Amino acid sequence: MKIPPVKGTRDFYPAGMAVRNWIIDGWKRVSLRNGFEEYDGPIFEYLKMFQIKSGDEIAEQLFSFQDRGGRDLAIRPEITPTLARMVNQQINSLPRPIKWFSVPRLCRAERPQKGRLREFFQWNIDIIGIDDVLADAEVIFTTVDYLRDVGLTSSDIKVKISSRKLLAAVLTKVGVAKEQFDSLYALLDKKAKLPAETFSALLAEQVPDAARAEKVRAFVELKNVSEIKNVVPYKMGSDVDDAINEMAECIRLLDIMDVGDYCVFDPSIVRGLAYYTGIVFEVHDVVGQLRAIGGGGRFDNLLHDFGGPSIPATGMGMGDCVLEILLREKGLLDESVLRKELDFFVIDLTVERRDSDGVLSEDEAVRLTARLRSLGLSAEFSYKSAGLGKQLKEASSRNAKKCIIIGDEFKNGELVVKDMATGEQELVKLDELLKQLQA
Amino acid sequence: MKIPPVKGTRDFYPAGMAVRNWIIDGWKRVSLRNGFEEYDGPIFEYLKMFQIKSGDEIAEQLFSFQDRGGRDLAIRPEITPTLARMVNQQINSLPRPIKWFSVPRLCRAERPQKGRLREFFQWNIDIIGIDDVLADAEVIFTTVDYLRDVGLTSSDIKVKISSRKLLAAVLTKVGVAKEQFDSLYALLDKKAKLPAETFSALLAEQVPDAARAEKVRAFVELKNVSEIKNVVPYKMGSDVDDAINEMAECIRLLDIMDVGDYCVFDPSIVRGLAYYTGIVFEVHDVVGQLRAIGGGGRFDNLLHDFGGPSIPATGMGMGDCVLEILLREKGLLDESVLRKELDFFVIDLTVERRDSDGVLSEDEAVRLTARLRSLGLSAEFSYKSAGLGKQLKEASSRNAKKCIIIGDEFKNGELVVKDMATGEQELVKLDELLKQLQA
Repeated sequence: MKIPPVKGTRDFYPAGMAVRNWIIDGWKRVSLRNGFEEYDGPIFEYLKMFQIKSGDEIAEQLFSFQDRGGRDLAIRPEITPTLARMVNQQINSLPRPIKWFSVPRLCRAERPQKGRLREFFQWNIDIIGIDDVLADAEVIFTTVDYLRDVGLTSSDIKVKISSRKLLAAVLTKVGVAKEQFDSLYALLDKKAKLPAETFSALLAEQVPDAARAEKVRAFVELKNVSEIKNVVPYKMGSDVDDAINEMAECIRLLDIMDVGDYCVFDPSIVRGLAYYTGIVFEVHDVVGQLRAIGGGGRFDNLLHDFGGPSIPATGMGMGDCVLEILLREKGLLDESVLRKELDFFVIDLTVERRDSDGVLSEDEAVRLTARLRSLGLSAEFSYKSAGLGKQLKEASSRNAKKCIIIGDEFKNGELVVKDMATGEQELVKLDELLKQLQA
Repeated sequence: MKIPPVKGTRDFYPAGMAVRNWIIDGWKRVSLRNGFEEYDGPIFEYLKMFQIKSGDEIAEQLFSFQDRGGRDLAIRPEITPTLARMVNQQINSLPRPIKWFSVPRLCRAERPQKGRLREFFQWNIDIIGIDDVLADAEVIFTTVDYLRDVGLTSSDIKVKISSRKLLAAVLTKVGVAKEQFDSLYALLDKKAKLPAETFSALLAEQVPDAARAEKVRAFVELKNVSEIKNVVPYKMGSDVDDAINEMAECIRLLDIMDVGDYCVFDPSIVRGLAYYTGIVFEVHDVVGQLRAIGGGGRFDNLLHDFGGPSIPATGMGMGDCVLEILLREKGLLDESVLRKELDFFVIDLTVERRDSDGVLSEDEAVRLTARLRSLGLSAEFSYKSAGLGKQLKEASSRNAKKCIIIGDEFKNGELVVKDMATGEQELVKLDELLKQLQA
């Protein structure tokens, strides 16, 4: 009976696990230094949690099931609904702002392809309770803080920033009906992946008036906030003006935070999820051959939609799949650095035959190894009954920093300690060695 | 729309998450120092993976579902089948012994009760490729190494050790037919939870011969390996003798490893899972009010059962739920220690009004906080426009080690750095502070 793994999932052998840990440890480290606290929810929730606000794409990709009580459940495809549920449950006792992060394991029933798997890990950071673009800027800063930390430069990646509020104000000003926004957002979100003619044709279907459609197209192709007035002339204090000021303030704050070179205004960014209400952004590789590395934005209505009070919120999500591809492409995943070192490899040359099976008793190696481990040091011995040369080779392949050799000198309570980098050896008393290691 | 969490799952708010991280970080630390490398598999596998070898209890508690391709899948209730699959897949390239650990999230459709939830984390360690009781002893040592590390003494917990091989040899010697072993194992595994009369009645059903049944009962109640001969007289070199010698050697090795005081021989230990073949053990609290804290044993046939070659293996699993209850009961979970410290809290007293909403611009605090974070330090500022006193209070509630106060002196490029523990303040130049922190 040989059963294969399920397509679109990953087996993390030790080398792959080291890479996963390196990525996730970085996410955690940067979250903590940016003042976020870690949380997590269950891997499954009630199915309806994910059917209402997540957007069609996610709702279609659910792994759902019934438990024996007939409850409809689903494996989480994202953690934001869980976040909303958890915050709502304790809304009166949580001090604000709520700055939380999580690294959930998520599952989506997608067709597996480059950078998209059916199971992945996603870094999430959220600031809840702050109705200030400074919070949006802080979320973007934290995102860049991580990417810069692992070695990605502003020539490698860009954060493309836009605003749902701005887009809504512009569409209203252009004359597009509110009822059409959602389907138009979905189309705009796919623009980068569509041939220009296909996009124009689909846009014409949704906005039949050619002049209006042209304005929408012209707007989403702008490169600067200052050019918006050329496409949609607006008045001081109007909705468009307000949204532009907020957008400009976000970019100004990112400059103050010294990540301005990573950030660009890009009104074609819309985000697929249905719940965004303000600033939205996506991180892309500059070459543009990969899917978005991460993205997020403001979602001021979500907590209310999940049965809580109206509380402003903004956040970001970044999966591990596309990120890992990019880090490998840029040579930033030095897997040799990820290899664990061993403090000690203990070799016993005083072995005696224990029984007729040829199994060797290495009591002293076993005893000393256990002592070292209990002192908090990583230590190993060999299960193979081999001579010194072979055991030193095994120690070396295990990346041992030092070998402790139990030989003839052990009669006098002495051991040989060999430094594996320099090859230097010294004779030490066992009790002195242990005393030294304990201190 | 207010949706509750699913019964039997946990929401990890930051305080609970800190406890979970503390437990899991300990498992990882002790695994690494004992020479285990981390691996992980997918959260779901083909359903049949878990139906064949896991034992009836687990097979009945699966969360199973179909994907859109009609494949029968299940969320993993344990990771050992995945381990067997992964090892078999790369059996020719993996250097032996394979010493791996994992901390999988697992789900079982159980009735939630004390120490049993429908979703939990389980520490797993396994040594594959070593047909030597030393490997079993090393697995037990590693288990105790963790429990001792977090402060549990041999008065708090005991590892109860037995052997399926010994049990099988004794049952054969007593005259019980091999076909009855599996159902008898299941009964013996439940013995501790059953009233004595109920156990006797159920035993009589399976072993109608009263003398035989009495021998079985007497055997599982023994306290010492040396007493076995009183219940079932055996010959040198017989199966019983071999199994006893292996058992005695395991206990001797645990003494050498200096964890003998944590270990006792207990032939009533059988383990519920169907795949054990040799040494088996369970960790119990001495008071005996909780379920097993962890357990494991040798499973020499499992890799073969999963389509691979015959390779010996031994391992251990320990869930987080019972462990956490015990650690709390013993006062070993000092949650205040788990609270994250903040290196710096930055207070800007030179704020200027940015707009008519009363939102304050704290550009300098924002700039400095971003700088500190980029240097790898944890830093925060306040979103509330408050005076010095209130901000110091917020810094204190955030567990900040130092406050940096941007005040009038900032005109001259100087800042006040306040040590929150001693209350001491000093005036420092910004660039000198940054130079110092960078080094």
